[in-house]
Amino acid sequence: MITGLNHVAIAVPDLEKAAAPYRALGAQVSAPQDLAEHGVTVVFVTLPNTKIELLAPFGEASPIAGFLEKNPAGGIHHLCLEVEDIAAAAGTVTSLGARLLGDGRPKTGAHGKPVIFVHPKDFQGALVEFEQG
Amino acid sequence: MITGLNHVAIAVPDLEKAAAPYRALGAQVSAPQDLAEHGVTVVFVTLPNTKIELLAPFGEASPIAGFLEKNPAGGIHHLCLEVEDIAAAAGTVTSLGARLLGDGRPKTGAHGKPVIFVHPKDFQGALVEFEQG
Repeated sequence: MITGLNHVAIAVPDLEKAAAPYRALGAQVSAPQDLAEHGVTVVFVTLPNTKIELLAPFGEASPIAGFLEKNPAGGIHHLCLEVEDIAAAAGTVTSLGARLLGDGRPKTGAHGKPVIFVHPKDFQGALVEFEQG
Repeated sequence: MITGLNHVAIAVPDLEKAAAPYRALGAQVSAPQDLAEHGVTVVFVTLPNTKIELLAPFGEASPIAGFLEKNPAGGIHHLCLEVEDIAAAAGTVTSLGARLLGDGRPKTGAHGKPVIFVHPKDFQGALVEFEQG
């Protein structure tokens, strides 16, 4: 069961520049936080009903480096759907023919909770992350 | 002031196929609705905190036809931020150097409310729609 949209992640080349309009529009904007083990620096934009996460590469092997090479101005990188039971959600989408990224087992995500990504080619061309709420 | 994320729009080549995993994951999924004047057929996926709108082209001159030519499997098309005052929001982002699409004046959007789009090159590479709540 999907319990909500946890966040939309936007990969950006310049976090300060990307955060400026959200701040100007009155949203709550965090300081940049380096998530070394995830290869990104994140600015959290907290809206009343969900979050936007602005991601910039951190370190040598950032998982968003390739995306920014293809989209130098940035772009919407993925959606994160919160689910009650990540194993059940993964089972549901694989039973519909979708592939999971990596070894198909949940990992600990940026919020310290189990996450798994679905192959974008199998999910409307959109990279979708499930996070157990 | 941003009052929330109204929806994330995903352009898809096949609405039924795109809707299937949301339905299987227990989300509320509408029947397809033709919005002739907007050139799209929409399926609304209502989550507890926001909506995902699955968009397929309707008619000859759909505004998402070009996007689907470039992204045949589909992809995340835009985010819609709900704002209290669309003229104020447009003024805020243009004062930061962002361009508005079209003639820069709000139009009536798919929900019957005033909307305006910001040029994606000026907003983190993401196509962002403002909708007056």
